[in-house]
Amino acid sequence: MDFRIEKDTMGEVKVPSDKLWGAQTERSRNNFKIGPAASMPLEIVYGFAYLKKAAAYTNCELGVLAEEKRDLIGKVCDEILEGKHDDQFPLVIWQTGSGTQSNMNVNEVIANRAHQIAGKTIGEGDKTLQPNDDVNKSQSSNDTFPTGMHIAAYKKVIEVTLPGVKQLRDTLKKKSEEFKEVVKIGRTHFMDATPLTLGQEFSGYAAQLDYGIKALENTLPHLGELALGGTAVGTGLNTPEGYAVKVAEKIAEFTSLPFTSAANKFEALAAHDALVETHSALKQIAVSLNKIGNDIRMIASGPRCGIGEINIPANEPGSSIMPGKVNPTQCEALTMVCAQVIGNDVAISAGGMQGQFELNVFKPVMAANLLQSAELIGDACVSFDVNCAQGIEPNHSRIQEHLNNSLMLVTALNTKIGYYKAAEIAGTAHKNGTTLKEEAVNLGYLTEDEFDEWVQPKDMVGSLK
Amino acid sequence: MDFRIEKDTMGEVKVPSDKLWGAQTERSRNNFKIGPAASMPLEIVYGFAYLKKAAAYTNCELGVLAEEKRDLIGKVCDEILEGKHDDQFPLVIWQTGSGTQSNMNVNEVIANRAHQIAGKTIGEGDKTLQPNDDVNKSQSSNDTFPTGMHIAAYKKVIEVTLPGVKQLRDTLKKKSEEFKEVVKIGRTHFMDATPLTLGQEFSGYAAQLDYGIKALENTLPHLGELALGGTAVGTGLNTPEGYAVKVAEKIAEFTSLPFTSAANKFEALAAHDALVETHSALKQIAVSLNKIGNDIRMIASGPRCGIGEINIPANEPGSSIMPGKVNPTQCEALTMVCAQVIGNDVAISAGGMQGQFELNVFKPVMAANLLQSAELIGDACVSFDVNCAQGIEPNHSRIQEHLNNSLMLVTALNTKIGYYKAAEIAGTAHKNGTTLKEEAVNLGYLTEDEFDEWVQPKDMVGSLK
Amino acid sequence: MDFRIEKDTMGEVKVPSDKLWGAQTERSRNNFKIGPAASMPLEIVYGFAYLKKAAAYTNCELGVLAEEKRDLIGKVCDEILEGKHDDQFPLVIWQTGSGTQSNMNVNEVIANRAHQIAGKTIGEGDKTLQPNDDVNKSQSSNDTFPTGMHIAAYKKVIEVTLPGVKQLRDTLKKKSEEFKEVVKIGRTHFMDATPLTLGQEFSGYAAQLDYGIKALENTLPHLGELALGGTAVGTGLNTPEGYAVKVAEKIAEFTSLPFTSAANKFEALAAHDALVETHSALKQIAVSLNKIGNDIRMIASGPRCGIGEINIPANEPGSSIMPGKVNPTQCEALTMVCAQVIGNDVAISAGGMQGQFELNVFKPVMAANLLQSAELIGDACVSFDVNCAQGIEPNHSRIQEHLNNSLMLVTALNTKIGYYKAAEIAGTAHKNGTTLKEEAVNLGYLTEDEFDEWVQPKDMVGSLK
Amino acid sequence: MDFRIEKDTMGEVKVPSDKLWGAQTERSRNNFKIGPAASMPLEIVYGFAYLKKAAAYTNCELGVLAEEKRDLIGKVCDEILEGKHDDQFPLVIWQTGSGTQSNMNVNEVIANRAHQIAGKTIGEGDKTLQPNDDVNKSQSSNDTFPTGMHIAAYKKVIEVTLPGVKQLRDTLKKKSEEFKEVVKIGRTHFMDATPLTLGQEFSGYAAQLDYGIKALENTLPHLGELALGGTAVGTGLNTPEGYAVKVAEKIAEFTSLPFTSAANKFEALAAHDALVETHSALKQIAVSLNKIGNDIRMIASGPRCGIGEINIPANEPGSSIMPGKVNPTQCEALTMVCAQVIGNDVAISAGGMQGQFELNVFKPVMAANLLQSAELIGDACVSFDVNCAQGIEPNHSRIQEHLNNSLMLVTALNTKIGYYKAAEIAGTAHKNGTTLKEEAVNLGYLTEDEFDEWVQPKDMVGSLK
Repeated sequence: MDFRIEKDTMGEVKVPSDKLWGAQTERSRNNFKIGPAASMPLEIVYGFAYLKKAAAYTNCELGVLAEEKRDLIGKVCDEILEGKHDDQFPLVIWQTGSGTQSNMNVNEVIANRAHQIAGKTIGEGDKTLQPNDDVNKSQSSNDTFPTGMHIAAYKKVIEVTLPGVKQLRDTLKKKSEEFKEVVKIGRTHFMDATPLTLGQEFSGYAAQLDYGIKALENTLPHLGELALGGTAVGTGLNTPEGYAVKVAEKIAEFTSLPFTSAANKFEALAAHDALVETHSALKQIAVSLNKIGNDIRMIASGPRCGIGEINIPANEPGSSIMPGKVNPTQCEALTMVCAQVIGNDVAISAGGMQGQFELNVFKPVMAANLLQSAELIGDACVSFDVNCAQGIEPNHSRIQEHLNNSLMLVTALNTKIGYYKAAEIAGTAHKNGTTLKEEAVNLGYLTEDEFDEWVQPKDMVGSLK
Repeated sequence: MDFRIEKDTMGEVKVPSDKLWGAQTERSRNNFKIGPAASMPLEIVYGFAYLKKAAAYTNCELGVLAEEKRDLIGKVCDEILEGKHDDQFPLVIWQTGSGTQSNMNVNEVIANRAHQIAGKTIGEGDKTLQPNDDVNKSQSSNDTFPTGMHIAAYKKVIEVTLPGVKQLRDTLKKKSEEFKEVVKIGRTHFMDATPLTLGQEFSGYAAQLDYGIKALENTLPHLGELALGGTAVGTGLNTPEGYAVKVAEKIAEFTSLPFTSAANKFEALAAHDALVETHSALKQIAVSLNKIGNDIRMIASGPRCGIGEINIPANEPGSSIMPGKVNPTQCEALTMVCAQVIGNDVAISAGGMQGQFELNVFKPVMAANLLQSAELIGDACVSFDVNCAQGIEPNHSRIQEHLNNSLMLVTALNTKIGYYKAAEIAGTAHKNGTTLKEEAVNLGYLTEDEFDEWVQPKDMVGSLK
Repeated sequence: MDFRIEKDTMGEVKVPSDKLWGAQTERSRNNFKIGPAASMPLEIVYGFAYLKKAAAYTNCELGVLAEEKRDLIGKVCDEILEGKHDDQFPLVIWQTGSGTQSNMNVNEVIANRAHQIAGKTIGEGDKTLQPNDDVNKSQSSNDTFPTGMHIAAYKKVIEVTLPGVKQLRDTLKKKSEEFKEVVKIGRTHFMDATPLTLGQEFSGYAAQLDYGIKALENTLPHLGELALGGTAVGTGLNTPEGYAVKVAEKIAEFTSLPFTSAANKFEALAAHDALVETHSALKQIAVSLNKIGNDIRMIASGPRCGIGEINIPANEPGSSIMPGKVNPTQCEALTMVCAQVIGNDVAISAGGMQGQFELNVFKPVMAANLLQSAELIGDACVSFDVNCAQGIEPNHSRIQEHLNNSLMLVTALNTKIGYYKAAEIAGTAHKNGTTLKEEAVNLGYLTEDEFDEWVQPKDMVGSLK
Repeated sequence: MDFRIEKDTMGEVKVPSDKLWGAQTERSRNNFKIGPAASMPLEIVYGFAYLKKAAAYTNCELGVLAEEKRDLIGKVCDEILEGKHDDQFPLVIWQTGSGTQSNMNVNEVIANRAHQIAGKTIGEGDKTLQPNDDVNKSQSSNDTFPTGMHIAAYKKVIEVTLPGVKQLRDTLKKKSEEFKEVVKIGRTHFMDATPLTLGQEFSGYAAQLDYGIKALENTLPHLGELALGGTAVGTGLNTPEGYAVKVAEKIAEFTSLPFTSAANKFEALAAHDALVETHSALKQIAVSLNKIGNDIRMIASGPRCGIGEINIPANEPGSSIMPGKVNPTQCEALTMVCAQVIGNDVAISAGGMQGQFELNVFKPVMAANLLQSAELIGDACVSFDVNCAQGIEPNHSRIQEHLNNSLMLVTALNTKIGYYKAAEIAGTAHKNGTTLKEEAVNLGYLTEDEFDEWVQPKDMVGSLK
């Protein structure tokens, strides 16, 4: 392989000559061979691109950066955001806990690429841009990395998570409406209970997601606060007057998202409770989705020896050995995602709780877990929606069969003959394998007509909403 | 021991004659010998007392319960809330997952105690109240237990957690103000960094708790929604028209808290995402408190071989073997609480994710964990506040000594001579064990006067706010 | 209330005069009002009693403690172990993270009670025993608390957890044998699959517990290592020659358990990976039990609209509103315990990972969580065994009905006509609502006789073991 | 793009013509667009390659597969293991929870590649091998996927985790020996305590890893048990006599690892407690490493305002804004890995606890988390070892300065003058800012000579081992 020599304050480093990165990136590549290469999420790199451009524009406006430098930085950031340099960010999550080296990776790529754009050859001639003094001006890794990760996380939540969850929620609502008159047996403790409609059952799922969406949205104001302007320890050392607020405005402008400057920069560097907070809502949604996915798998179970009250789409052969088998595979993918998200929540807590003094150095692991959860939930909701939820249909004959058999219809008699006599009827029918009506009449507690009038499943489900 | 015979639909049971409970409570005592007795939190029993009274009043207003029965139920509920029957609730968390037996425990105690109040002897004569038909009228365990646990949790958050966290937050804010001119060395990566004030450091802690308080308050509307009126599966079977809304109003009135009737009763029985949501905020606060407690322990470390920049109160002899030792014991209690809360969060997720069909049967474990976390956080914040935070004082001589020594003051020179020369100065001083000023002048990058003018810690901390 | 004055190195403290504890216990009571009083598990106090006695005997043998002092200490320790002083240990888990104050609580109670035994009045006359110099001789909180918690944990695992899990495992094995010829439909993905016997199904449960028992036993050697002899930081300062090994032998003798002196005392004070290790096995058992409990709840579901292939004992009325309902309550208690244990595991990790330098100061929270999990698992297994597992019976008619209906019997044809034709048969029967045999013959892939010969559920379950 | 038509039992599917996979893989690609493509770990694919080859050889030996088919299957498996087809496995973790589609992916690639090797064109002519009937012969996804994941996990633990942890353990042991005479101040509760040697401190770290290694090795026998031979539900349907044991022997032979046939195939399909068990040990190691990494970061803190008792290698510039800063970046990468592993443990529990009936359908998420943890721990240990641990050196002047200052040397006087007088000396010196010797003599408790004789740090560290 061909190399060129790059330098930093510790000396010279050989860098592959076809790469735009510099000495510090290369040091990190060599010093942190942990897990697969380039595991640092590209979304964070893009977050950096937004903030580097915003910083350049702000620095220029505030008189500390020349226009031509601003334009060069802006141009390279745009290229990064277009995905033109995705292969220039080889670093891993498991590096410096402040993400310093990913900040330098971006600084170095911008500086070297700007050198090219300026018509020069990397490694030759005076530097067009200094990575630390120009690209990183008015910045520190300690405020850029958290800014980059907030941008990445916020965008992912807005662009992937919320649309995905809402899409599924909407389908569940629609199904709830569609199924609003399908009276079926209820189940509590996994045992037969009083009836409800299939629509009511689905309305509960939709309500769960409604709460989850609201909980997630509640976290956005905190997540939208950006650390940029705090620099090294939160004091804003080496930033021009007015910088923090203005740079957040630029980022809001460039991303079209309502980012603000963090009210307290010390908190914004030393704690990442905003990630903890947002991920908590993702975890809540995962808890909801696990219930929903598991319920649907169980209601659809069968086809002949299970509950079988709904049919779900058959998307693929279910078994490599059992011919003709169809499985609730979307439920399985969905609930596996839930397990992952619930685990990620602990990883994020473990990182969040261990900040020390002016800096939390678990930034990359926290950000990567949040981004993974946010993406998986959004994607899994869409996949589940398209490939399962939309195609759910009631299995009316099975529903009717269960409904007619259930002993728990006896509950309707509580207000007529009292709990204790009603219990006697149900118990006797269970023991004798007979119907409620037979035993109700046998025991002399009511007439056949009374039974038929009082025990009507469709009257037991409330207002059918 | 003396016994009397109590009956339920399954037959007769011997109950200690000095106890107010009945057959089902006794069955549960015998069938669930898991862990210490009476582990079901009394707060939940009190929650039941509120709701049983509210149900009686509502049933009466809606014409399905006689006034004298209403008054008897209300009277016993008041006695329970006064703590007069705390020893009548012997059941454990680890029972039916719907808390059915705790519901019946309350029903039975109310019925038997009402019998006494009516001047009769328990077990003799016609029942004054039927546990199921009267006390439990228009109710099911499936909607009462979640209602009771929401009442208990909401009250605990309002009465213990929020006041505790706010008390500590206020002290931290006050300290932040007090220490606003105490310039000290910052630390990032546990290494010396640029300066900030001790007040700024504390402002970050206060900000963390501000966000935590807000996050916790965000969850209250969901937690304030009550399942009551859903009865067995959410349909409201066996409740009179208008019952659900009215009973929630009564509970709001009796508790003076803004409870509402759950918008979707199916969600309210089958999922307990409201507990997941509230506990997530408790977990977030735990993550914050762990950082704060750990920081204070580290900043106070010493007295001679640590960081020692603050002094904390000496509350007790610190060691049974090392004479004269004083330890950051409040930090330790606080961070142990955090560990517990972070674990409880997973227990609650594990319960929340496993609801099935119309019912989640992990209610008691979820409620108990939430109540424990809510109480521990509130109590620990008060203990930490009173016994540690309020007494924190700067150790000025130590702070000054560290500040003067730090090599990171060199950062002030970035904007004067650039990052790379500044790095050379710091590196040389580090290698030679000299001062920055000596090496800055030696290297010829600036004069002594320039150094004195440019490298001023107090100018490096921003607006001293 | 009546008080007496007690002193420690920080001065005087008023202590209730009817209590045996001294100044430091009282300070701790006042300084740590966090959660319910006396939450420090008594098992740990008993662990202290064993070790204090062992230390006294060892100190005496090694010539640093007088015989009469040894005998007094031993006598009080015996009283403590007989449960005579349970109300003398009022401290909470949420205290000093080294448990120093619980160590002092024990030291103070022993010293004061010894004074009484010596015929004197507490607070009057020369101290019969000095809490620090005599009772705590050759000890530090830093080695006694971990020793006490290891003793407590080991005993709990041996006396409660393992017997409980083994009892349930034995029942499951017995059922597996009983049910070994009950051929039933299998279910994978919650969908009908090829048959197996009910005995085979139960053999899987028993195997899970076999592995769990083995995993738990694998952790005992580490848990059996005692820190005692390390004193303040692990060096054994202020202990006589040979003390550490001898005192562990004494503890082994007094408890009749194979305790040994920790190979590395620095690890034994600064890390509590032994608790992490043992609790990991408890968590594994919880994971297993959750599967088992959930399976049994599902297999027993019904009675008329579920799977219903087994009957479980009806232990109590299942519903306060639905007459005659019977629920799988033991499954619910069991799986709630599992949720708790899985959460406790994270609390223990959070404590274990945060040791600093020579001491981990999350000892009480780690120990309390382990003891809770160990007890809950043991108790819940016994409760589940006695009240559910032992009474499980197959519902033969339901099993047969499901078996005959299943389309997955077609799998037997793979080796005769290939997967693809077999799939066609199953798919057609599913579509038409017909039997496999009908469609197999219709499609011309085999004769009726061949079908009857080849598709025999009992031939599809292997060697019936 | 160019396509060809592939078929399965559900019909035709268009597959990119340059790909070896078939219809079911393509269906899965389209149905599960969740997270990044090809997230299913390649290690599992390689595990499949071993087992498919082993199955082919076993089937052939047992007379149910022709030799030429065996050889073709074996040849393709070898190619897969050589990494020649890494781009033919595009599926994600978030698919069917049994991994059915990854099993089919392997079956289809083998069948199509065999067709090529046989000199034919994919999609043309009679199939050389049938994916289900030949490649998957005597197998089901339900036993192959768990077998593949056990092979992958076992190999990863043996090849990456254990060597990495052992390498670091060995360095820590070596350092412990090197530093065995470096007497330094101890710290408990983060406060100055009695002395120990730096070697003793490091011996505790090495001991932690020793226990972790042992705990991990304890889990290998369970992990080494393979499900293969259980087929669909554990009964071994459609396998020839003797198959299960023989195929495990083949896998052991091909991998040179001591794999065995699972004792109970029902457990091996329906529960993945073996993964839970192995990951628990990984979590324990993570807990240990977090303590070690954090300690080293703290002991190395400074350079001028921290503890600074050791120097660690300066591997890269530490700050983008603070010139000359050097950070404990390897500690940060290491502890971030620990946070991830502790989170992964919960994901694995969440999957493991939710198996249902004859199958656990959280296989891919469990396997992927285990593989990630196993790799990250191994890699991070090596990185930490090479780039940090090996280069640790004592900072003797700082160590000496701290040692001389410490008030806790007073503990040596306990056995001479008692705890209470010793406490008075330390307290007075602390208050007056004087030395212990001054105050000891002033208070008249001992002479200067006695002090010099009795208070010797080097005599306070035990046997210097």
